[in-house]
Amino acid sequence: MPEDSFRLVISCPDRVGIVAAVSSFLAREGGLITEANHYRDPESNWFFMRQVIDARSLNYPVALLRERFSPIASEFSMEWRITETAIPKKVVLMASRQAHCLSDILYRWRSKELVFDIPAVISNHLDLQSYVQWHNLDYLHIAADSTDKSKHFSALSDSLTQLKPDIIVLARYMQILPSDICSRYPGQILNIHHSFLPAFVGARPYHQAAARGVKLIGATCHYVTEELDAGPIIEQDVVRINHHDSIDDLIRKGKDVEKTVLARGLRYHLEDRVLIHGNKTIVFE
Amino acid sequence: MPEDSFRLVISCPDRVGIVAAVSSFLAREGGLITEANHYRDPESNWFFMRQVIDARSLNYPVALLRERFSPIASEFSMEWRITETAIPKKVVLMASRQAHCLSDILYRWRSKELVFDIPAVISNHLDLQSYVQWHNLDYLHIAADSTDKSKHFSALSDSLTQLKPDIIVLARYMQILPSDICSRYPGQILNIHHSFLPAFVGARPYHQAAARGVKLIGATCHYVTEELDAGPIIEQDVVRINHHDSIDDLIRKGKDVEKTVLARGLRYHLEDRVLIHGNKTIVFE
Amino acid sequence: MPEDSFRLVISCPDRVGIVAAVSSFLAREGGLITEANHYRDPESNWFFMRQVIDARSLNYPVALLRERFSPIASEFSMEWRITETAIPKKVVLMASRQAHCLSDILYRWRSKELVFDIPAVISNHLDLQSYVQWHNLDYLHIAADSTDKSKHFSALSDSLTQLKPDIIVLARYMQILPSDICSRYPGQILNIHHSFLPAFVGARPYHQAAARGVKLIGATCHYVTEELDAGPIIEQDVVRINHHDSIDDLIRKGKDVEKTVLARGLRYHLEDRVLIHGNKTIVFE
Amino acid sequence: MPEDSFRLVISCPDRVGIVAAVSSFLAREGGLITEANHYRDPESNWFFMRQVIDARSLNYPVALLRERFSPIASEFSMEWRITETAIPKKVVLMASRQAHCLSDILYRWRSKELVFDIPAVISNHLDLQSYVQWHNLDYLHIAADSTDKSKHFSALSDSLTQLKPDIIVLARYMQILPSDICSRYPGQILNIHHSFLPAFVGARPYHQAAARGVKLIGATCHYVTEELDAGPIIEQDVVRINHHDSIDDLIRKGKDVEKTVLARGLRYHLEDRVLIHGNKTIVFE
Repeated sequence: MPEDSFRLVISCPDRVGIVAAVSSFLAREGGLITEANHYRDPESNWFFMRQVIDARSLNYPVALLRERFSPIASEFSMEWRITETAIPKKVVLMASRQAHCLSDILYRWRSKELVFDIPAVISNHLDLQSYVQWHNLDYLHIAADSTDKSKHFSALSDSLTQLKPDIIVLARYMQILPSDICSRYPGQILNIHHSFLPAFVGARPYHQAAARGVKLIGATCHYVTEELDAGPIIEQDVVRINHHDSIDDLIRKGKDVEKTVLARGLRYHLEDRVLIHGNKTIVFE
Repeated sequence: MPEDSFRLVISCPDRVGIVAAVSSFLAREGGLITEANHYRDPESNWFFMRQVIDARSLNYPVALLRERFSPIASEFSMEWRITETAIPKKVVLMASRQAHCLSDILYRWRSKELVFDIPAVISNHLDLQSYVQWHNLDYLHIAADSTDKSKHFSALSDSLTQLKPDIIVLARYMQILPSDICSRYPGQILNIHHSFLPAFVGARPYHQAAARGVKLIGATCHYVTEELDAGPIIEQDVVRINHHDSIDDLIRKGKDVEKTVLARGLRYHLEDRVLIHGNKTIVFE
Repeated sequence: MPEDSFRLVISCPDRVGIVAAVSSFLAREGGLITEANHYRDPESNWFFMRQVIDARSLNYPVALLRERFSPIASEFSMEWRITETAIPKKVVLMASRQAHCLSDILYRWRSKELVFDIPAVISNHLDLQSYVQWHNLDYLHIAADSTDKSKHFSALSDSLTQLKPDIIVLARYMQILPSDICSRYPGQILNIHHSFLPAFVGARPYHQAAARGVKLIGATCHYVTEELDAGPIIEQDVVRINHHDSIDDLIRKGKDVEKTVLARGLRYHLEDRVLIHGNKTIVFE
Repeated sequence: MPEDSFRLVISCPDRVGIVAAVSSFLAREGGLITEANHYRDPESNWFFMRQVIDARSLNYPVALLRERFSPIASEFSMEWRITETAIPKKVVLMASRQAHCLSDILYRWRSKELVFDIPAVISNHLDLQSYVQWHNLDYLHIAADSTDKSKHFSALSDSLTQLKPDIIVLARYMQILPSDICSRYPGQILNIHHSFLPAFVGARPYHQAAARGVKLIGATCHYVTEELDAGPIIEQDVVRINHHDSIDDLIRKGKDVEKTVLARGLRYHLEDRVLIHGNKTIVFE
């Protein structure tokens, strides 16, 4: 995506005329649409839309676009936003000791496959510090005090307040976030869970999978809500295993799925492709 | 798809205002859009659209819809059509001796998973006659005369003329159709080739695959053109093999991919989801 | 597998010398091994083996092979069996109203992709009778009496007693078998469950999947035990879905996975490739 | 695999008694077999075997094991080797400017997912130098002189002579190696080709794929031989694309497949799981 774009993302009650109104507005403004998706959920009768507009075709700033679009949004009771690709989102990455997801995201970031800013990487361990710092990134070490978790989370909460992230990515952070942090960032915290949810919620899912004797293992990227591993799912995938595979093999094979699924989920979110609807997601891939 | 729908399928040179024009037209007519997709090919600057409209929302016949839409189509130099789900497409199925693809399509037809009419099944062998006839379908046996292929194809050509198919499906028909038949039905003949094209064009692709030592085999559903196995691809898939697999195993595993890929390709075509653009397809899945 | 084979299937406590003993025995007898697999479970220290021997290479009947092998089996405390491909297994197929799994199995049976005998197809409905009978197979209609299930299951139990099946395949039979039938046929009843177990146990798994907003749906072939959907898993697979897919789409896409997974599971079982170990399976694919 | 193991890898003409001889030998020596695979190619009547033996169970050095096994090897005209996990293989990594494959391999190396030594990373560009050096690895920059390729390759050849690699991995090296280097390292040079071979041999396979309009793209890990992209295939995989995907999307999606396929192929090779047989491979996964 070399040129600057505006992304218009809409959800509202469905009725005849929404596409006509939005596309006529954009045509009148001379906006060149480079990508467009819409979807109508027949059950809830709700409408979802994502439009990508070449910023140069409009020839005026995003503030004016928002102002001019506002009456249409009101008319159709839209929940809406317009984002600019020129302003990268701020993503705080959180990890523990395992490097696979963090390394993968940092590779995609430094190779510009995914475009975003990283105010800091936060970890409860020091294992990944040197690697992160090689990227000239801030590494916040907030040690997990097992006897007093509240101290840890209060320090974490303060750091987040300062860092003002648009998104928080739990790249195998391995701690359950307290409710108040979850609720402060609704639809902004992405987690990778190392199972095919809703199978194997909670701790040690690969051990659970081995115990049940499944023939595929998976990973799930989802938004974090106050209920553990129960938030809206963004992306999932699986990999085949067989009786030869030990727990260590499951963990090894699973890592590859985890990082791929998290990278896809993060890309969808960064590019404003994910719309949350109740406990489900619409993903305009 | 329980209710009757109209499907509006468009391709034309891209310019600002097409979506606005079409969606405003449909909104004015009161048309309830149940599914919509569009795509702009940046290389050729060409625009593609598929809209599904609830027929009851319009409350007038398709002929009138075509008449009213006609000026917009002219304005944008559209190639377009409006089809009705109430009128099932006529599909001539052609097979040889192998049953897997034909059985699969007939199952989907009799279970109404795919909705279409079958004027006849044509085969150069008698193996599948009894099975086809159990379905109360006509079975045309046009024997392949190996010494005089032209006689066979002339009989075939005459049969097709009489049957007036909208679509011809080569469900492992195993004969190369002559150019004149190919060119009479452009974009209407679907073939299933038992390899991942463009690998292993032509005869005995599983033997070619075994000889090359590949680790996956595949199948390709494509439109038939005058050049062998070179027409626009609609759908492809693969399955993993390994050194244990004999040619017979490849054939067995391949059959499952072949029938799945053909069924998907046929469904896309029947539901007007495939738009041909040069030697490629846009598939609005 | 055109020639007759013997299949030797073994499980026993692991110790040094088992492979040597078995393979030396077979070498002494002049047995040509066409396929061989073994596996040692490190956790339970248990050993599993499957050997396929070309029957002609032995030049004597299976009874003698069993007799001669018996001392080795005793020495190593083996649980073992030797089966003959010349004697097809007897498979009772049970279905309800949906045709996809039954049709698929019958296709594989009549095309000889899978080799077995069918003493009867049992159903609680008449929908599939004509189709089954076209295959010259017995169709036992045992109506499900919703007010008195026990009568239904007692009739079913009697039929099974008469039919003496080696295997019972629940090809979407849609009834929960009573404990006594389950326990009469341990490791002999194959079920296809239309979810990726252990996710979505029980009724209406596609509805459960839609409610949870998963991005993949799956199917599981497992042995039936007294606990619902909890028996040893033989095979699983998944297919991708997205927000566009209605429940009907899930059911349609799921059917293709169900029949493929059931066919694979059945083939593994028919070819003596599955060894049950606690609640898990070793599958020598 | 935490404990030291010996790996016995064999190929020879098939005849009755090989498994018996090898397993009886190992049983006599008290060797604990932790993994075992064999395969008989019916076409060429050739036999392949891989046995993993717990080194502690033998209680004597590998040299003695080789000596004692030697008579059996002679008797059956075996091509064979015994490797030790205690001696990591020496892997020279070669890359150009793209980081995805190299980063992925280095991650697996530093996390000890894959165990091997890296005498040096060789590149014709400086882009990856700093990243490689952070790992405390030697970075050999051998600039590609476009006017005089022979100078480049002669310097490369000299470096390889000095580095004495067991394996050379072309991690998107982007240069065609001259015949003399290829033939010096038979079955030791692994390449990742960014297509599903034999489709799209040679340059710019993603452009070729886009031009043909395929619906899946792939990657192939193979041994390098003197004929371009025609060596024995170790591993392949694919990923789905559609009409929306630009060449840049193909490249992005393809990168994820490339690195996964290369990592799998490298693991198989490092663990002595790959046996070359003519232009094919037996891979004991």
